[in-house]
Amino acid sequence: MSDTSEERFCREEVMKLGGYANRIARINLTDGQVRYEEIKEEDARKYIGGRGLGVKYLLDNGPEVEPLSPDNILCVMVGPLTGTEAKMSGRLCVVTKSPLTGTCTDSHMGGWTGAKLKWAGFDGLVFKGKAQSPAYALVEDGTVTLHDASDLWGKSVHETIDLMREKHGEGAAAMSIGPAGEKLVRFACWVNADERASGRGGTGAVAGSKNLKCIVIKGRRANMPQPAEPEAFEKANKAALNKIREVPTTEPVEGDLHVHGTNVLMNMVNEIGALPTRNAQRSDFPQADAIGGETVADTILERHPSCFGCPVGCKKEVEITEGKYAGLHMESVEYESAWAFGAMCDNGDVNAIAAMIDRCNHLGLDTIETGNALSMTMEATERGLVDGLAWGDTDAMMELIQKIALREGIGDDLAEGPARAAEKWGAPEISMSVKGQSIAAYDPRGIKGMGVGYATSNRGACHLRGYTPAAEVVNWVLGEESEADPLEWKGKGELVGVFQNVYGFTDSLDVCKFGTFAIPLDVYAGLCSAVTGVPLDVNSLLKIGERVYNLERYYNNLNGFREGSDNLPERFLKQTGTGAASESVCELDQMLEEYYAFRGWENGVVPESKLKELGIIA
Amino acid sequence: MSDTSEERFCREEVMKLGGYANRIARINLTDGQVRYEEIKEEDARKYIGGRGLGVKYLLDNGPEVEPLSPDNILCVMVGPLTGTEAKMSGRLCVVTKSPLTGTCTDSHMGGWTGAKLKWAGFDGLVFKGKAQSPAYALVEDGTVTLHDASDLWGKSVHETIDLMREKHGEGAAAMSIGPAGEKLVRFACWVNADERASGRGGTGAVAGSKNLKCIVIKGRRANMPQPAEPEAFEKANKAALNKIREVPTTEPVEGDLHVHGTNVLMNMVNEIGALPTRNAQRSDFPQADAIGGETVADTILERHPSCFGCPVGCKKEVEITEGKYAGLHMESVEYESAWAFGAMCDNGDVNAIAAMIDRCNHLGLDTIETGNALSMTMEATERGLVDGLAWGDTDAMMELIQKIALREGIGDDLAEGPARAAEKWGAPEISMSVKGQSIAAYDPRGIKGMGVGYATSNRGACHLRGYTPAAEVVNWVLGEESEADPLEWKGKGELVGVFQNVYGFTDSLDVCKFGTFAIPLDVYAGLCSAVTGVPLDVNSLLKIGERVYNLERYYNNLNGFREGSDNLPERFLKQTGTGAASESVCELDQMLEEYYAFRGWENGVVPESKLKELGIIA
Repeated sequence: MSDTSEERFCREEVMKLGGYANRIARINLTDGQVRYEEIKEEDARKYIGGRGLGVKYLLDNGPEVEPLSPDNILCVMVGPLTGTEAKMSGRLCVVTKSPLTGTCTDSHMGGWTGAKLKWAGFDGLVFKGKAQSPAYALVEDGTVTLHDASDLWGKSVHETIDLMREKHGEGAAAMSIGPAGEKLVRFACWVNADERASGRGGTGAVAGSKNLKCIVIKGRRANMPQPAEPEAFEKANKAALNKIREVPTTEPVEGDLHVHGTNVLMNMVNEIGALPTRNAQRSDFPQADAIGGETVADTILERHPSCFGCPVGCKKEVEITEGKYAGLHMESVEYESAWAFGAMCDNGDVNAIAAMIDRCNHLGLDTIETGNALSMTMEATERGLVDGLAWGDTDAMMELIQKIALREGIGDDLAEGPARAAEKWGAPEISMSVKGQSIAAYDPRGIKGMGVGYATSNRGACHLRGYTPAAEVVNWVLGEESEADPLEWKGKGELVGVFQNVYGFTDSLDVCKFGTFAIPLDVYAGLCSAVTGVPLDVNSLLKIGERVYNLERYYNNLNGFREGSDNLPERFLKQTGTGAASESVCELDQMLEEYYAFRGWENGVVPESKLKELGIIA
Repeated sequence: MSDTSEERFCREEVMKLGGYANRIARINLTDGQVRYEEIKEEDARKYIGGRGLGVKYLLDNGPEVEPLSPDNILCVMVGPLTGTEAKMSGRLCVVTKSPLTGTCTDSHMGGWTGAKLKWAGFDGLVFKGKAQSPAYALVEDGTVTLHDASDLWGKSVHETIDLMREKHGEGAAAMSIGPAGEKLVRFACWVNADERASGRGGTGAVAGSKNLKCIVIKGRRANMPQPAEPEAFEKANKAALNKIREVPTTEPVEGDLHVHGTNVLMNMVNEIGALPTRNAQRSDFPQADAIGGETVADTILERHPSCFGCPVGCKKEVEITEGKYAGLHMESVEYESAWAFGAMCDNGDVNAIAAMIDRCNHLGLDTIETGNALSMTMEATERGLVDGLAWGDTDAMMELIQKIALREGIGDDLAEGPARAAEKWGAPEISMSVKGQSIAAYDPRGIKGMGVGYATSNRGACHLRGYTPAAEVVNWVLGEESEADPLEWKGKGELVGVFQNVYGFTDSLDVCKFGTFAIPLDVYAGLCSAVTGVPLDVNSLLKIGERVYNLERYYNNLNGFREGSDNLPERFLKQTGTGAASESVCELDQMLEEYYAFRGWENGVVPESKLKELGIIA
């Protein structure tokens, strides 16, 4: 960015904003040059940070870039609340053009990496180009330097992080790709020192394509940014905490998320017939309880670590002391991962599931996509399409996970993403994916909102763009009890749109999604206002969220995505579920109609008038 | 224990008690034999477990044993609440005859070791004898086996635990002694995998004298003992949690212990002129704030781990990213340790303090005693008695810590304990100790109750036998606001007696002392009743606590301790403090008179009538 007078003006303005480090690093891996720039105030006001700002940079970089080419950018972003005392703000997101979907994508990790990036003086790192040989980035005191990582190449995530901590101090935050990212597996991910992952969309493959192995961050708490209005900030933060305490899902000691973690959902979702099972040939799983959070808590749970700034502590560290997997000590049997390797693959062995998740963390593989790859291979095997896997064969599953990461045998097909593999195997209908990304642990026949959520997600099938199960299963939304019938389709088009807008904002802040069970919008607005010093009300907040969502859609439209891309695997539309959803299919068309009306899109395209209204284009 | 019909009867009775594993291992290190026995119901009813039961075993073993001889026993004990869902119950204690004081001693550690010992099937391990060569004990599934530890001898605590976890699985709990224990440093301690220590009294030296390096425990949560009365247990546990939430000290998210840890006391105690400084030549420290919990939180705090079963999370893991100690990542800058290496040594460098605590954890040294050893050496140097240390010389302090552990130079004198060293150096008055054990971070000129507490503690000077600062500083006792003037001596004799009795019970349960800020006695009684199935009211609870305290006193009486042993270093009695205590000395004699009247002791000796009344002797 050149130093024009207009930009100098912006910079001076930006300096008034609290919460921001006011510093983005642009790292050109090809020539090793690093440039530093401030966030333009206009960008900060429009897109806040995190996801929103990352996608803005993506658009500025040109939308038609090839995801695994040097021209793509890889943005590692935090928001204005990151690294402050704000509750549940310990997040970081990786934003890039996805090699799995061809859409923009953003994927968020917990732990301490986000806070430390802010404390190291950055709101974001934007990597472009391709290093001549494997490199890692060292971030400290407002500088980014690149270093040789030849000896790290081929190493697992954990080996890499251990070596980096030996070299740069045990307290250094680090995030790394594994062998899967190096091999350009299209759903390779980043995993950090806290074993939290930016799981979805293949951000690890983009890093691999750039020869970028690891990012090491040395941040000092003493550099925590101060809110612009400390008293208002404290008040809003206290209000957030009080709501977190009040809501049974988030309550810090006895709440569902603390006691059983995300995997408390396994039995709940199974009971309403919304647990995709055997590659979604069924929607309930008889062995659900054996792989759910309650069983984990009664058997292998070790402790409850928490991310920076979080009173909830949803992570459930486990250890296995007996049997085949004895000695395994791993981060957490999260609901989505337990489902992917469990119900989806007809596997009721929770210890094996823990081992598979752990293996994925070592290899740097998205557990959701990997589980889908396995379950799809099982269905393909059943159909005689490949010589693959039997349902629930845990040893063979473990082997195939390894083969995917290393692109061996049919693992090489699957490494292109289950959707491409299914296409190659001549049965695209067995891939449970939208826009090339596989579904998560909610069957849209049992939770209708999730159907329109998957279909209209801007990063391919995803439960996190519009988490309607908050209303349909958990029944707590933004601090209010809120019950929506999961089998009713009416209203879900609009509901998912509202959720998408809310998350467009909160993912840009960038705060933990679980906070949105408890924290009301006016409190989020209050936190953001107080930290930045820029007044923000709930209407403006929703407008920002809508802007972010439309920005992403615009980016995808420029990549050719239209209404027809907003679809679902046929079995959800035509084949009834099982269990409590045994008479139900997903009424996607009706919900899409409602949804497009809410959005004001034409043929799935954001009209120019909307882009102008939202200030996305001039 | 032979299998007489009387004992068979007891065993059957014991089997009805919930919470207990009903299994003690007696490990004879000399011949490698391990015997298993149940706890006699009479013992369980009288002494509960943990501290009480450990001291009972000590008495049964014969009181006149030489602490560092094979005849001494080393008891590793848990109580009926350990490893259950009871809040703040994650403790384990090591009970033995102390080589530092010649009294009985018990020292409690947090973390996960206690719960895992219970889950491995044990209420206690009692080691006796001496192994031919270094050994470690492996505890799993109700068995204890001994293994060669020759290759571990000489290794630090952390190296040892890492090697054991490599061998026995990352999830194995382990506690180890360090080089200091091997060298029989009289204040060597045990440190566990969570870096929590059984710090005081030289329990690590007793292990060293037995060639016992490490205890590795593989316990499975699935073996958690169930309460005898689950509903009553849940109700009592809920009541405990509600009180923990209600009291500002223990509240799980914003409470003092969670936010700043124990080191929140530094400024509080300094302000009332009760922070022993420069080897207690002063009682306030101008640099207190620089080493207190608030500063730690603002600078080097990393995260807030918690012990098993604890909603509070008082531990404050820190990392140092810059300066001389950059790269240091350690467990917690606890108040007592920060004081010992800080105020006591006139050292205001909190990073250096963290490094010293960490060094002690590696070497297996009690930080309180070590800090006292350093401060005393500084005073001795000032007086020209030794060529030792200048006040606040952190590099030299670090060196001397190492020398103490390895018994090099004057470190060898200090390894005998500061009291013996002071004697040798011809200046016994500069050792701030009682019965050979040094004081903790409370100056009895500024907190009077602590004076009679140190003097009458059954394990030498100790703040934890009767923690009157709960009333004198923190102002929360057993869930009630309770304010006692720290400069008033009247009533403190009785106050300390009541605290001693309460802890006699809670240390036998064995629960965290910090719970006693919040949890009322009837809730403790309810928890104990519900878990064991044996009804217990508050009066019986206090009677048990009194029994335990008198049992210990009886043990010490049998070792020659009398009223005259209940003393304090002269400077607390004759030289006024500084700061807010500038006009104050400690009125020990008056408080002792009150105390003995409360106790009903004669010349410091428990009369036979009392022993009979309490059922200690028949």
